[in-house]
Amino acid sequence: MQNRIQVRDLLPAKNGEEPTIQFLLEVVEILTNYVRKTFDRSTKVLDFHHPHQLLEGMEGFNLELSDQPESLEQILVDCRDTLKYGVRTGHPRFFNQLSSGLDIIGLAGEWLTSTANTNMFTYEIAPVFVLMEQLTLKKMREIIGWPNGDGDGLFSPGGAISNMYSVMVARYKYFPEVKTKGMSAAPRLVLFTSEHSHYSIKKAGAVLGFGKENVILLKTDERGRVIPADLESKIIDAKQKGYVPLFVNATAGTTVYGAFDPINDIADICEKYNLWLHVDGAWGGGLLMSRKHRHKLSGIERANSVTWNPHKMMGVPLQCSAILVREKGILQGCNSMCAGYLFQPDKQYDVTYDTGDKAIQCGRHVDIFKFWLMWKAKGTVGFEQHIDRCLEISEYLYNKIKNRVGYEMVFEGQPQHTNVCFWYIPPSLRGMPHGDERREKLHRVAPKIKAMMMECGTTMVGYQPQGDKVNFFRMVVSNHAVTKSDIDFLIDEIERLGHDL
Amino acid sequence: MQNRIQVRDLLPAKNGEEPTIQFLLEVVEILTNYVRKTFDRSTKVLDFHHPHQLLEGMEGFNLELSDQPESLEQILVDCRDTLKYGVRTGHPRFFNQLSSGLDIIGLAGEWLTSTANTNMFTYEIAPVFVLMEQLTLKKMREIIGWPNGDGDGLFSPGGAISNMYSVMVARYKYFPEVKTKGMSAAPRLVLFTSEHSHYSIKKAGAVLGFGKENVILLKTDERGRVIPADLESKIIDAKQKGYVPLFVNATAGTTVYGAFDPINDIADICEKYNLWLHVDGAWGGGLLMSRKHRHKLSGIERANSVTWNPHKMMGVPLQCSAILVREKGILQGCNSMCAGYLFQPDKQYDVTYDTGDKAIQCGRHVDIFKFWLMWKAKGTVGFEQHIDRCLEISEYLYNKIKNRVGYEMVFEGQPQHTNVCFWYIPPSLRGMPHGDERREKLHRVAPKIKAMMMECGTTMVGYQPQGDKVNFFRMVVSNHAVTKSDIDFLIDEIERLGHDL
Repeated sequence: MQNRIQVRDLLPAKNGEEPTIQFLLEVVEILTNYVRKTFDRSTKVLDFHHPHQLLEGMEGFNLELSDQPESLEQILVDCRDTLKYGVRTGHPRFFNQLSSGLDIIGLAGEWLTSTANTNMFTYEIAPVFVLMEQLTLKKMREIIGWPNGDGDGLFSPGGAISNMYSVMVARYKYFPEVKTKGMSAAPRLVLFTSEHSHYSIKKAGAVLGFGKENVILLKTDERGRVIPADLESKIIDAKQKGYVPLFVNATAGTTVYGAFDPINDIADICEKYNLWLHVDGAWGGGLLMSRKHRHKLSGIERANSVTWNPHKMMGVPLQCSAILVREKGILQGCNSMCAGYLFQPDKQYDVTYDTGDKAIQCGRHVDIFKFWLMWKAKGTVGFEQHIDRCLEISEYLYNKIKNRVGYEMVFEGQPQHTNVCFWYIPPSLRGMPHGDERREKLHRVAPKIKAMMMECGTTMVGYQPQGDKVNFFRMVVSNHAVTKSDIDFLIDEIERLGHDL
Repeated sequence: MQNRIQVRDLLPAKNGEEPTIQFLLEVVEILTNYVRKTFDRSTKVLDFHHPHQLLEGMEGFNLELSDQPESLEQILVDCRDTLKYGVRTGHPRFFNQLSSGLDIIGLAGEWLTSTANTNMFTYEIAPVFVLMEQLTLKKMREIIGWPNGDGDGLFSPGGAISNMYSVMVARYKYFPEVKTKGMSAAPRLVLFTSEHSHYSIKKAGAVLGFGKENVILLKTDERGRVIPADLESKIIDAKQKGYVPLFVNATAGTTVYGAFDPINDIADICEKYNLWLHVDGAWGGGLLMSRKHRHKLSGIERANSVTWNPHKMMGVPLQCSAILVREKGILQGCNSMCAGYLFQPDKQYDVTYDTGDKAIQCGRHVDIFKFWLMWKAKGTVGFEQHIDRCLEISEYLYNKIKNRVGYEMVFEGQPQHTNVCFWYIPPSLRGMPHGDERREKLHRVAPKIKAMMMECGTTMVGYQPQGDKVNFFRMVVSNHAVTKSDIDFLIDEIERLGHDL
C-alpha cells in the first residue's frame, strides 16, 4: 500500500483522511513491536555501530537529507531503522543512565501530548495542561512538606535548568537589582555545593555570570555526603575574604554515589548565615514518595527551592523536571518581562493562569501530561511501590557482590540510593600488590568491559573515575521492569567479559 | 474491556503484552479521531471554560491526583477529556500563535521519539539521533550560507534559550575569563536589539548577569525594521560613556510585524566596531527555504550566530529550535564542564560525537527526529512549497482587507512575512474623530472580539498593543492546512462579532 501513497496524499489533502489514518497505524505497528521487544530479554539492548559506519549508510538507511521527497514506504523503513540502530533505554538490562524504563502510561501520555502539540505559556492555548501543572506542583510541594503546599514552581527542560532557576531566584531574592543592572550591582557572590554534586551547579555559576571559581566545592565524607563543618568553615573563610555567600546546594541523591547530604545540618548553617538553601533532588527526590525511604531527605521542608526530576527515579518519560520554590511570586518577579503580544492583561479569563512569564523560556513544551496521567493510573501508592522495588533490587545487588570474590566496593556500607559502585577485579589483578601498576590496570578494566558489553549488545552500565578513585562501575536501577534475574545476568556478564582481562 | 484491566496488568507484568498493545491501540484510536477532527472545519477550535470551571471538575473529568490508582477505563476517559477541553492548534482556523498546524509526518516522528525515550547527551545512548542532528545542523548552516556548512550548533528547548546561547557565546568569544571569574572580570558590556525584537534578548541580558538596562533598544522605521543609523549612534554613545558594546541582535521576522531588519547594513556596522552579530530568525528563518523569499534575510551569512525555529514557520511539532554558530568549537569552550560520569574520554568510539557538554542542559530531549523525518518526507522542495503557500495566503488576506471598509492597516505596504496587522473598526467608531475617546474605544475592540471568538470556539487570532498603537489584531499563517476560505471565514467572523461593538 505504502508505495502508492506520498506525503502529499496525507491530511490536509483532499480525501487525505484514510491514507493519514492508515499511515499512522502503520507507524503505530512499528512502535508497538518495538515496545513488545523492549521488554523481551531475548532482544539485545543495542546493535552497536561506530559513527562512521552509520554515516556511511547502513543497508537501506541513509541519514542524508535531500531536495526531493521520499515515498511513505521509505519513511516507514526509516522509522524501523532508526529504532533498530538505537538503544533500548526501556530494556530491563539497560542500567546506563539515571533515566531508564518505558512506562506504558507515560508513553501514551507523550503520544497524546505530541498530538495536542501546544505550548505552556498561556492558559489560552493550554488550559487543561496549565491546570494539571498547577495541581501537580502543589501536590509535590505538599509532599516536600511546605505548609499547605504553598509556593511556586514550573516544569523545566531538565535538572540542569531547574538548578539554574534556583540560583537565579536566590540572586533575585537577595540582590533584585541584578535583574536590571547586572552582576556589577552586587558584591562578589559565592555559591557552595559539594565536590560530589552535579556539574550543573558549576555550570549555572558560569552561565549566570558568577564565574566557576565562585562556586566553592565542599568536602564530603567517604560516602559522598557533605561535611557540614566544611561548609561552615568555607562560609567563614569567604566572608573573611570579603565575598558574600549567597546560596548552598544540598544534593539529595548524588549522581555517582547516590549520597544524600545531611539537609538538616546544612539548613541550620544556612539559617545562621542567612543563605538560600536549594536541594537538588533531581535523582533522589523520588524517594519522597516512599514512606520507607523519605527520611533520607529529612529537612527538605526547610529548603527554599527544590529540583525534582520525575523523569529519573519515578520512571516518567523524558523530559520531566520540576523546580519548586517555597516563596510565592518570586519566580515571576525574577523573570517577568511582560511581553504585550502574549500576556495581554485584558483577556477575558483570570490571567494569573498565564504562567509563561515566570519562565526563562518563551514557548515551553508540555511536560506535565504524561506525569499527571501516570499519577492518575498508579496513584501515589503506585509510585511508592515503584521506588521501594527499585531500592530492593539494588539492595539485592549490593548483598550479592559485597563479599563476592573479584569485587571491591567503592564505599563501605549499604548505599542510600539505588547506586551501587564497585570495581570488578579480573583474576589477573587479584594477587597484584596495591600500587600504581595495579591502579593503571584496574582503571582500564571497566572501559574494556563496557566496550565489550556494547559490542555484544547484552547490557549497559555506566562507569567513571571519581576523585582519586580509578574507573569503577556505577550500577543504578530506576526501571520497574528490572528483576533479580537481570542483576544476576549483569554480574555473570561482567565476569564473562572481564575474566581474561 | 478496559474495566477489566488495570495498570498493573500492563508490561512489564507477566502476560502483559496483550493488554499493553490493546491499551495503546485504544489510545491511538482516541488520537486518530482527534487528528481527523482537527482538520474538519465543522469542529470547533476550542470549547472554552474558565479556570475555575475546569478546576471544579467537569462531568467525569477530575484533575485532582489521588493516592489510589484509577482504572484504565478511566484513564482513557481522561485522555479524551484532556483533548476535549484543550485547544486544537492544528485546526485550519487557529491563527493565534507563530506555531500552528499538525504535520502528520512530524506527529509520527514525535510518537517514535517518545517511544525511543532517550537523551541527546551522548552518542552512546542516542547514536542515530546524534548523527541526524549533526547532519541536519550542517544542512541548515549550508542554507544560511556559511562556507561548506562549517560551524557548530545544537537544538535547544526553544527560541528564547537559543537566543540566550548566542549572548553567552558572544561573551565567551570576547571575554572568556567570565566563565571562570564571572561578570566582574569584564567591563560594563552592552547588547543592542530593536524595540520590536523578541523579549528573550532582554531576558537573556537579565539572566546572564548583564542587566536589563544594558540591553539597549534600537529605533525602528514605521514597518518595524531597525534603523541602522540609530544602531551606530547608540554604539558611539555607549562607548563614550565607557561601556563596551558586545553584541547586536538583528531580527529576521519580528514577532508582531514580521519585519526583517536590514542584516547587511547591520553587519557592516558590526564589522566596523568588531561586535558579535546574531540573527534571531526564530520566526523568519524558515524563509531561507524559499528561493522566492530568502532575499529578505540577505546578509545572514555574515552573522556569527543564528536562531532558527523549525517549530514555527516550518510546521514542525513543538519543540524544535536550533542555535547555529559560525565558529566551530566555541559552544564547547563556552559550556564544557567535562563531567567524568558522562563524558568519559576512554570510550571505544569517537567521543567527539558526545555533544552534551556543549549545552547548558545535561539531559537534552530528542527534538531532531521529527524534523529529520519531515525533511525526508517532503524534501527541501516540500518546505519551500509550504513557505511559499503560507505567504501567498497571507498576501490574499492583505489584499482583501487593505482597502476594505472597517479596516485599518497598522503599517503601510505589503507585509514581509505572514504577519498582517490590522484594526477592525466597528461601525460605531467609523465616523468618530481621531482622538483619545476613539483610541480608548478602539483599544477595547480586539479583546472583546477575541473573547467572543473563544467563547464561540470558531477561530482564534492574536492581538496586542505595540508602542503607542492601541490593541490590534496580528494575523499569522504557518499551517499549510489554511486555505483562502479560512481567511474569508476569519474576516466574516470578525465582522459578525464586532459589528455591534
